Amino acid sequence: MAVDDCRANLIAAATPLFAEKGFNGVGIRKLGNAAGENPAMISYYLGSKEGLYTAVLTERFEPLKRVTELKEMDDDPMKKFEMYVRATVARYRKSPHLLSFYTSELTNPTPCCETIVKPAIRGVVQMLIETFSEGLSHDQFRKGLNPADTVLALAGMINFYFLLEPVTGEFVDHSPERDEEVIQHIMDVFSKGVLK
Amino acid sequence: MAVDDCRANLIAAATPLFAEKGFNGVGIRKLGNAAGENPAMISYYLGSKEGLYTAVLTERFEPLKRVTELKEMDDDPMKKFEMYVRATVARYRKSPHLLSFYTSELTNPTPCCETIVKPAIRGVVQMLIETFSEGLSHDQFRKGLNPADTVLALAGMINFYFLLEPVTGEFVDHSPERDEEVIQHIMDVFSKGVLK
Repeated sequence: MAVDDCRANLIAAATPLFAEKGFNGVGIRKLGNAAGENPAMISYYLGSKEGLYTAVLTERFEPLKRVTELKEMDDDPMKKFEMYVRATVARYRKSPHLLSFYTSELTNPTPCCETIVKPAIRGVVQMLIETFSEGLSHDQFRKGLNPADTVLALAGMINFYFLLEPVTGEFVDHSPERDEEVIQHIMDVFSKGVLK
Repeated sequence: MAVDDCRANLIAAATPLFAEKGFNGVGIRKLGNAAGENPAMISYYLGSKEGLYTAVLTERFEPLKRVTELKEMDDDPMKKFEMYVRATVARYRKSPHLLSFYTSELTNPTPCCETIVKPAIRGVVQMLIETFSEGLSHDQFRKGLNPADTVLALAGMINFYFLLEPVTGEFVDHSPERDEEVIQHIMDVFSKGVLK
């Protein structure tokens, strides 16, 4: 097997295991077996279990980095917020384990929180704050709104929708078919809440 | 030591350990030692490690049950929403481990998710949905807003503020002194977003 295949294989197999059991809940042998590889390949390709976990998190949080590209787009702030919400939905749909790493690193951080998770989330929050501040300076938003509090509220609306999915199915249809409706609903409440 | 003291002692000592290491990440011996009790006392007073974890979660999620008491209050919907937000803030301030159990049970449920966490969260969400529907029927809110989506958005605004605390300190002062300001800010955005 080519070097890259073996490495990618180890990362793919480790992702659900780390997501479900946490960094400490799974050992080298199980991680190797799940990938159908000799556990020694973990040390060989990734240095250690820590190295494998770091690679898994790097891959999961990579899409958050791309959110900051919205900064460069010459769109109005409300369009950028909508693109952020839409990108967040797409991330969770594409990577069901992301939420698990996201919440576990925030409540019980490993060293990867400081090196991977925190920079990724800060990049997104900073982009959102700058976007809101820009709109404020152009008199688009109500005076007196705190940019940081406002964008954390927006982030909460969409992220929490996915976190509560396992327990609120009785009240809300969480299926992907309804994603566009949810995005529009959040943007409706948010824009009425902040626009002048 | 009195029976109740020993039991309460075991629960108190187990709470941070389970919160930080998860149900599978800590054993009977460590749980007993942390409480300064013989590990056999866990079986004696709580049946098993599962029994101890169940008792810890029952205690942490008890305050969520009390949120449903807001239902009985003869206040206008927007006042009830504010009381809900304020009660949520108070819960996290009083019980720093709550968020950890909350997110880990939602992303990697133990059997306690079905018996303790889900009923507690559903009770809160149901109360919020009924409150919003009541306001809708009295023509207080904009037509076309989906009650469930709307209240999940409100819940997201306040819960996410606490989840992101470890990584957004650079942008937002998360200290308790600012809680009232955050509550007012969220209610400001939310009420402008939903009121007619």
